[in-house]
Amino acid sequence: MLIICTTCDDGRGQALLEAVENEALARDLPLPIRGQACMAACRQSCTAALQGAGKHSYLFGQLAPDADSVAALLDVAAQHAEPGDGLLAWARRPERLKSGLLARLPPLG
Amino acid sequence: MLIICTTCDDGRGQALLEAVENEALARDLPLPIRGQACMAACRQSCTAALQGAGKHSYLFGQLAPDADSVAALLDVAAQHAEPGDGLLAWARRPERLKSGLLARLPPLG
Repeated sequence: MLIICTTCDDGRGQALLEAVENEALARDLPLPIRGQACMAACRQSCTAALQGAGKHSYLFGQLAPDADSVAALLDVAAQHAEPGDGLLAWARRPERLKSGLLARLPPLG
Repeated sequence: MLIICTTCDDGRGQALLEAVENEALARDLPLPIRGQACMAACRQSCTAALQGAGKHSYLFGQLAPDADSVAALLDVAAQHAEPGDGLLAWARRPERLKSGLLARLPPLG
């Protein structure tokens, strides 16, 4: 599940959500995507989270509603959705997301 | 569930975990507490997270292994464990945690 903050940065978060949704549709990706009002990392906006049952959660910041961020988010969301605990391998991390990681929380115990 | 980063800040995270565990024991609090190696917010160390099934997750940073942080973490952990979705009311937030909130993620949908 890819969650994008819709209140980030005066409309840019909402724009990022829409761009990601459109690109997922264009690529016919079966990826669940939703918006969320505020994930409390406003100074690092735009922000997006990855979550899933039994998986680590990630929060990325310093994103923008542009093609680079959209492609990178769809890439890591697909990696996170693979079977397993959702840990993202550094070697497979899109260049755009090699900085801006704000938090990684363990699976619910 | 209160989760404290054990790798934060060269031993201070581990010290915070032990201080919180000792204080919870002293107060006879039935609160689940555990350590976690790295929650990826190293520049905001020490860090601690609140998680629970069906609840919002919180990540707090800028903590220290001192009495103020310990008391504040036990307070919010008790609030977070109350029935409901785990949203923490601002009015009940311990003063020590009115800054340093790094992330708030929604419940797993």
